[in-house]
Amino acid sequence: MSTRLQPLRWSDSVVTILDQRALPEHIAYIDCARMEDVREAIVTLAVRGAPLIGVAAAYAMILAWREVLTQALSTDDLLARYEVQAHHLAAARPTAVNLSWAVEKMYRAAAETMIREGTADEVDAVLIATAEQIEAEDVTLNTRIGTAGAELFSRKVTMLTHCNAGALATAGIGTALGVIRKLHDNGLLRHVFIDETRPLLQGARLTATELCAEHIPCTLICDNMAAAVMQSGRIDAVIVGADRICANGDTANKIGTYGLAILAAYHQIPFYIAAPFSTFDFALAQGQDIVIEERDGDEVRYWQQYRTAPTEVNVYNPAFDVTPAALITGIITDRGVLTPPLAASIARFKEEVE
Amino acid sequence: MSTRLQPLRWSDSVVTILDQRALPEHIAYIDCARMEDVREAIVTLAVRGAPLIGVAAAYAMILAWREVLTQALSTDDLLARYEVQAHHLAAARPTAVNLSWAVEKMYRAAAETMIREGTADEVDAVLIATAEQIEAEDVTLNTRIGTAGAELFSRKVTMLTHCNAGALATAGIGTALGVIRKLHDNGLLRHVFIDETRPLLQGARLTATELCAEHIPCTLICDNMAAAVMQSGRIDAVIVGADRICANGDTANKIGTYGLAILAAYHQIPFYIAAPFSTFDFALAQGQDIVIEERDGDEVRYWQQYRTAPTEVNVYNPAFDVTPAALITGIITDRGVLTPPLAASIARFKEEVE
Repeated sequence: MSTRLQPLRWSDSVVTILDQRALPEHIAYIDCARMEDVREAIVTLAVRGAPLIGVAAAYAMILAWREVLTQALSTDDLLARYEVQAHHLAAARPTAVNLSWAVEKMYRAAAETMIREGTADEVDAVLIATAEQIEAEDVTLNTRIGTAGAELFSRKVTMLTHCNAGALATAGIGTALGVIRKLHDNGLLRHVFIDETRPLLQGARLTATELCAEHIPCTLICDNMAAAVMQSGRIDAVIVGADRICANGDTANKIGTYGLAILAAYHQIPFYIAAPFSTFDFALAQGQDIVIEERDGDEVRYWQQYRTAPTEVNVYNPAFDVTPAALITGIITDRGVLTPPLAASIARFKEEVE
Repeated sequence: MSTRLQPLRWSDSVVTILDQRALPEHIAYIDCARMEDVREAIVTLAVRGAPLIGVAAAYAMILAWREVLTQALSTDDLLARYEVQAHHLAAARPTAVNLSWAVEKMYRAAAETMIREGTADEVDAVLIATAEQIEAEDVTLNTRIGTAGAELFSRKVTMLTHCNAGALATAGIGTALGVIRKLHDNGLLRHVFIDETRPLLQGARLTATELCAEHIPCTLICDNMAAAVMQSGRIDAVIVGADRICANGDTANKIGTYGLAILAAYHQIPFYIAAPFSTFDFALAQGQDIVIEERDGDEVRYWQQYRTAPTEVNVYNPAFDVTPAALITGIITDRGVLTPPLAASIARFKEEVE
């Protein structure tokens, strides 16, 4: 029996989203009947995690199609309006590439069907099939990543992870947590240390909830304790997800990842990224070109309604940071582990997946 | 006009303590009429900061003296009972050495007066004078540290600090924040980045409150954002306080300090400790001998009454970590800046202060 929470469900005309902001205190769902509802859920982080945002956006593109259909006068107009909606949805969050990847895939599916003079119903059917394929594919990708990552270790290991790259961030078992789950299945997982991941505590609220539910041995720490735990010799490897991986291997992920990578290098601990091909932005040369989302300072100044700082204090709240390729031991993908030199490994990987 | 909150006040028979746990939401005071009340305030972090704990403990030792006086039968018995209370008070928190330093100084003042066959009233007067001297001396030490630290910089600088080593951690202008205040006075401070400092958010709640009250330009970040801010090139130096400095320069300070020191070294940013002589434990050879206080996991699992993690998750919550001397650019003391090799500099410093 799985105790896993399902973060997203599609049924006919509604995307039902588990409101991850309320976890672990409340299990609440949001029914999204309009594209804008899904977009709002992405913007407010009710649904989050790069791969899962891609899946949510795919289903939102079905709703968007039906909405433009009620407004458009001609085929050209229909496609133009659909494209506007696609851009609007893709702009919901700037850093994770899976969002624009899924939106573009959906838009192309509609456009190609229309070019073949398919009916509106046929487009609808193609969009449903494409979204379901994106979701089903993510499940498979997770499993492949988990298997590939687990093969890196032949002895019992203690892992450190950051944020949530688990079942709540994907359609399947997760990317980084997929590897951790596979290690646990294989009897090779001693323990997991979880960074709580300020300001929104995805590690404490989501990863800890996932691992506790499956009785995977874990310990929660504050982000600033990771160095001390590494110093104590207890960490065998760090593993995290990704929001965007550049052609040279520079990787955007949840804020704090870059610091962890430096700490891991200092302590000579391997540092792994786990992500599917859809997280790669092969067109982007390097990390400094990645747009880093800055979020509202009140995420830091308040916890729920409690003030944690003076109201008037200036806050800098970047949601992500960029880890340079040089600090990454390997990128665990759905087609095996990419190792340094990452630029060359990623170039070969690009040829395989395209 | 000073807008500075006074964290502690002695009057005749009561130590009035600003309850720092309630800041910035509430300004509340605790009147401590018994030694045990002060000890409780230290244990629960109503009063915190290594130098200020020393001052609080000094006044608590007056209360303890008066308490044993009502119980003891003979002079020997009196001193024996006073010593028991001294050990009990010194054990309130294990890591900051200023606590046991102040307690020992007070105990010795009482013992020496008794050996000279002083009356109980004379002992009382000596204890009051000693405590007041410890408090007044801390004010002077802070100013000297501030001046010595500010002399390190000749151009406008942006500083990063962690936790609270300010007026709320000392009797004066603070250690690390003393340096920052002096730089500001000298027109050499561009900006201060403040780590919020999980789990108890002393950076967000206390340091941000202090700096905002004095209109010192500052920005609050989460601990895990420090690396990204350093990467952006905005930080000229890191400066923090200390809870215990060993003979070789290894330094215990608020959890997260060790990680910051590694990040600073990686980005070639100078990393300074600011602390008075009373924070040095000359008898302790190296950092691995420092006892690190572990606190209740609920400090991480909850914020006020809000759950931030599943109740059942295991938590590791060390209050401090140890930064090895090799990562420290200099220790700013009340007698100037100690530079590497720190073991030799500290040996000379020991001779000066003893």
